Amino acid sequence: MAHAGGHAGRHDARHLHKGQQTRAAILDAALSLASQMGIEGLSIGALAEVTGMSKSGVFAHFGSREELQISVIREYHAKFEEEVFRPGIQAPRGLPRLRALFEGWVRRVAAEIDSGCIYISGAVEFDDRPGPVRDALAGMVLMWHAALSRAIRISVECGHLLPNTDPMQVLFEIHGLILSLHHDARFLRSPGSVERARTAFERVVAYYASPAVQAAVAAATPGAASPSH
Amino acid sequence: MAHAGGHAGRHDARHLHKGQQTRAAILDAALSLASQMGIEGLSIGALAEVTGMSKSGVFAHFGSREELQISVIREYHAKFEEEVFRPGIQAPRGLPRLRALFEGWVRRVAAEIDSGCIYISGAVEFDDRPGPVRDALAGMVLMWHAALSRAIRISVECGHLLPNTDPMQVLFEIHGLILSLHHDARFLRSPGSVERARTAFERVVAYYASPAVQAAVAAATPGAASPSH
Repeated sequence: MAHAGGHAGRHDARHLHKGQQTRAAILDAALSLASQMGIEGLSIGALAEVTGMSKSGVFAHFGSREELQISVIREYHAKFEEEVFRPGIQAPRGLPRLRALFEGWVRRVAAEIDSGCIYISGAVEFDDRPGPVRDALAGMVLMWHAALSRAIRISVECGHLLPNTDPMQVLFEIHGLILSLHHDARFLRSPGSVERARTAFERVVAYYASPAVQAAVAAATPGAASPSH
Repeated sequence: MAHAGGHAGRHDARHLHKGQQTRAAILDAALSLASQMGIEGLSIGALAEVTGMSKSGVFAHFGSREELQISVIREYHAKFEEEVFRPGIQAPRGLPRLRALFEGWVRRVAAEIDSGCIYISGAVEFDDRPGPVRDALAGMVLMWHAALSRAIRISVECGHLLPNTDPMQVLFEIHGLILSLHHDARFLRSPGSVERARTAFERVVAYYASPAVQAAVAAATPGAASPSH
């Protein structure tokens, strides 16, 4: 009995495991389809074609197109968190952490030049399409923005940035650098965008940095972080 | 005869005029359709529905969907030029002109919060769809970028910005502010984005400004253009 029970348990686990694997494989295909066609380009039919599965097979894993779209956004968010957020917050509190988060973000956008960032393209796709998909997307973007503004606030607390620094203003400016990078590298295919984003980030940070940090940054990278006059 | 000829001429002119009016009306409807649905959302069929014309009526003015899309991009560009570029270049050479161009751009994006900017959303729509529509769009965007980088270069020549200013770097940064404004105001519906864009622009300009201009700006707007430490 114990053996049979154990066997049945293993069988269930294997079955569950296989179901999860299939779901993960569909999600993977959905993610790459979404980065090419947009989240609105996602449909059960298109996904069935890409994965070679039947429509009902895909449908068994995602009950509706909307559920599929939201699952893709969550999957993208999980990957983003794993690649950008988690390594970034390993860095010491304050400017080093903010810089690590920004650098991870730049690398991710640079790596996505051929596929596109679902956050950025999704924002344009859904900026006038209210509903659960837009809400899921905005929720993920706001979660990332909150993580960044927390890192900025900690930089102020650590004395790395000036006490009167407005975290939302800093966030607005560094987010702009990422959007500019995505636009120039992906749409205009213009070279040098990654370096421009990094240069500008150091300039933004230097502006808001407290005098002690500013002096340290200037000493470490002459010319890069302070105006050359 | 002279009278008849004159009459026929007037008739032709009126006919031509009417054709142009119809075309302009279709283009107007197409522009607003494109800002809602994206340039890819434009089709002869959708436009016929919106204007209450027959498909063949719309088709007579725009021979293909692609021609329609390109005409809409050109029309958007003409309006952008009229509203942003032309008033902007009336301002005196140097920083005043650069500031006027940026301010016009901010106002245009702010006014478009409910419709969306075709340049910005089009860039995301067409960043991986090569072809004549993408080329037309990129051409218009690059033309505007060239106008801005010319204004930046003139600011350097006038001595308003430092001689070692990299116009492409400044352009990258101020374009990012516009993209951030568009994202936050339109997708996140977050208030205060227009003011954030303006504040950041003054900060960018102050960074690259020559000492004389920097002192003048600091005197005119204490705290806004220079770090408060």
